[in-house]
Amino acid sequence: MSATAVATACLPVLGRDVRVPLVTGGEVEYAALDYAASAPALQRVWDDIAAYAPYYGSVHRGAGYLSQLSTDLFENSRATVAEFLGCRADDQVVFTRATTDSLNLLASVLPAGTDVYVFETEHHAALLPWQQREDVEVHYLSAPRSPRAAVEVLEAALAARTGDGPALLCVTGASNVTGELWPVRELAAAAHRHGARIVLDAAQLAPHHPVSVAELDVDWVAFSGHKLYAPFGAGVLAGRADWLQAAEPYLAGGGASRKVARRADGGVDVEWHTTAARHEAGSPNVIGAYAIASACKALTEAGFDRLVERERELIARVRDGLAAVPEVKVLSLFGDDADRVGVLSFVVDGWNSSHFAAALSAEYGIGVRDGLFCAHPLLRELLGADDSEQGECGAPEAEPGERSLNAIRISFGAGTPDEHVDRFVSAVRTLVRDGAAWSYRTEDGRCVPAS
Amino acid sequence: MSATAVATACLPVLGRDVRVPLVTGGEVEYAALDYAASAPALQRVWDDIAAYAPYYGSVHRGAGYLSQLSTDLFENSRATVAEFLGCRADDQVVFTRATTDSLNLLASVLPAGTDVYVFETEHHAALLPWQQREDVEVHYLSAPRSPRAAVEVLEAALAARTGDGPALLCVTGASNVTGELWPVRELAAAAHRHGARIVLDAAQLAPHHPVSVAELDVDWVAFSGHKLYAPFGAGVLAGRADWLQAAEPYLAGGGASRKVARRADGGVDVEWHTTAARHEAGSPNVIGAYAIASACKALTEAGFDRLVERERELIARVRDGLAAVPEVKVLSLFGDDADRVGVLSFVVDGWNSSHFAAALSAEYGIGVRDGLFCAHPLLRELLGADDSEQGECGAPEAEPGERSLNAIRISFGAGTPDEHVDRFVSAVRTLVRDGAAWSYRTEDGRCVPAS
Repeated sequence: MSATAVATACLPVLGRDVRVPLVTGGEVEYAALDYAASAPALQRVWDDIAAYAPYYGSVHRGAGYLSQLSTDLFENSRATVAEFLGCRADDQVVFTRATTDSLNLLASVLPAGTDVYVFETEHHAALLPWQQREDVEVHYLSAPRSPRAAVEVLEAALAARTGDGPALLCVTGASNVTGELWPVRELAAAAHRHGARIVLDAAQLAPHHPVSVAELDVDWVAFSGHKLYAPFGAGVLAGRADWLQAAEPYLAGGGASRKVARRADGGVDVEWHTTAARHEAGSPNVIGAYAIASACKALTEAGFDRLVERERELIARVRDGLAAVPEVKVLSLFGDDADRVGVLSFVVDGWNSSHFAAALSAEYGIGVRDGLFCAHPLLRELLGADDSEQGECGAPEAEPGERSLNAIRISFGAGTPDEHVDRFVSAVRTLVRDGAAWSYRTEDGRCVPAS
Repeated sequence: MSATAVATACLPVLGRDVRVPLVTGGEVEYAALDYAASAPALQRVWDDIAAYAPYYGSVHRGAGYLSQLSTDLFENSRATVAEFLGCRADDQVVFTRATTDSLNLLASVLPAGTDVYVFETEHHAALLPWQQREDVEVHYLSAPRSPRAAVEVLEAALAARTGDGPALLCVTGASNVTGELWPVRELAAAAHRHGARIVLDAAQLAPHHPVSVAELDVDWVAFSGHKLYAPFGAGVLAGRADWLQAAEPYLAGGGASRKVARRADGGVDVEWHTTAARHEAGSPNVIGAYAIASACKALTEAGFDRLVERERELIARVRDGLAAVPEVKVLSLFGDDADRVGVLSFVVDGWNSSHFAAALSAEYGIGVRDGLFCAHPLLRELLGADDSEQGECGAPEAEPGERSLNAIRISFGAGTPDEHVDRFVSAVRTLVRDGAAWSYRTEDGRCVPAS
């Protein structure tokens, strides 16, 4: 096998051979290009789960053979994730349900009076959890137009702090809209210079790029299984144990509680665990956690650097292809030179983004996403829209307008074959040049062929 | 096939043919008798998931064919669960991660000033979430020794209320320790007579018994997939929409937010959904939700009443078998006549419960659980222990004592063949009569063969 062939091999994923009907007749292999929302399961992840499923048992609590085996599998999964993330020896790895849950968990353990800093360009999962805490002050940082500006904006905000309580920066590693990489290491250094901590939202970074907690010197990292080729309902928050141990448990219940006793005055005394179990009340999602660990192993064993290299080639193909279509405007916060992962949003002159995405699906079998990508302030910034024009999350545009208020996003990763990306570029070119074969209308919150 | 053969058929589950080694030599088919902690997946559930997995895609957000299909599958799963639970037309079904999560969600949406009533005999997941709310008063009700006493205790407590704010009773449908059924319908009527609402913790009831929200007239019901033969990280809270819609979202993030906009004063305005999505921020666990729906269908189609009937026969076999061993004391709150599901705890005179459970596993391939079952006050009541003797959750007893501070629990269900129950009864008899073949010691929080 030639070096080129090795370099271009994608990893086997479920659904690779799924065929979907086209409104124009016939059917075609489905091109899943919505990895930024949810990635297909790696075949390896599925195989590992299928092999384990008959041995599934209660963890931490059972005396039986399968319970002991499942407990080992669950705790070994935790260790695998810690290794994958390059955690420090005393970091805790908490299994959550997804990044949103991880960041809500972290929000719940912030010491009272914490100053939280977050760029307005973040995904809602990173933007919104902090303001649920009434005893925490959230400082929204304006959209920076370069990685350097991001560091400067943070430095200025931290320098202007008046209090000396705890502070936290929450920042994404890679934008879920533009795919652009954020200067995490530099932001971490700036935060620490000012005595602040930093949590890395790696939902979009971890599936595309090795992440090392210790090397980046971030205090916590959060990511989701369903974007990391392990869509079985689990996610991760990993990092410093102190705030996690000091706070009330995220969920109250069994597993988190060590001892519970009625008090003479009629109340109930609880002694909580101080390990990761403190925030994992209830029966853990063993299969979800094992799926994540399996994906971590698969990416590592495949050679993550090689996967990154291959994804760069795909990104270049998409960008070159779109650059050849003048009606397409690719959205960018940091400009053309910014490094990015396989996530890219754009609008098309004269097109309603929802109808464009519907045509890609119905006429080409290509699954992308249109909308505001749960990052409304960022989209408004990128589209130059103002508040009154702001759309809703997930709602397709009602009518084609002169200027799009939604965007179209393509995203891909380790399971994407070249053909999917090539088909996408070709479809964009044809749609813009020849128009759609069918017309589309909005129904029940979806775009469907108007027939 | 004879009527008897039909009546005794168990449903196919994963792991049915798993064989485990015995310390005494050889191996045996594993008898999973820890259903109350986690039940094996129904083969039907696994097959449904395996068939769907290649079609997995992002829900609510993608324009592609698989996203539309996955959205339908997810929302149809919600409808299936509503039907399975006999929900009212305007009830909401929220997918959570498990019962613990469901009850924590409900605790988070209680109106300020709510009086919460909970029996001290509840599982920690039902006992503890309420006191996390500082603006809610929790009233712990003392252990009733009959179903009738339970209603009387509640009536008395509600009659003694001084305020006229909202009130909520949280009660289990079936004890996770004794398996005994609680008088849910009567408690619901009593609660409603006094203007209080009721949430049914159906974690142990729903897998063993049809539950109808409308017929029982409960306001909410909570259960877990992993105890309902669908161990894929999802659970359910279903019921009245009003408190759910009025409260802040459980998790802040995408999916729960309809519109997000920066304010002129630097803050962020959020408009949240009022559907179930309000409390389901982040990418939903589609596979987990579908697994639950698949299990609901499988139980219904198998004839739930027939499964109940068969389980009753198994319970009678276990009770008769244990009654023949004088050293065994079965734990009961409501007495011998109480109706129960396939969950039963006991202690053995002269035996350390942890060592007994370890011997069942190591010498007979039977997986049970020993401990306090995340219901410490109830165990103390049942064992006649006082505070100073209280053990820890999940920790085996260090040394054999004259009186056990832990108990042994056997639990089973629709996937349990007769042979597992018969083997258990026979093993108990032999262990009590002849002692264990090996001795056991405690190591790393587990009991293991001593040599």
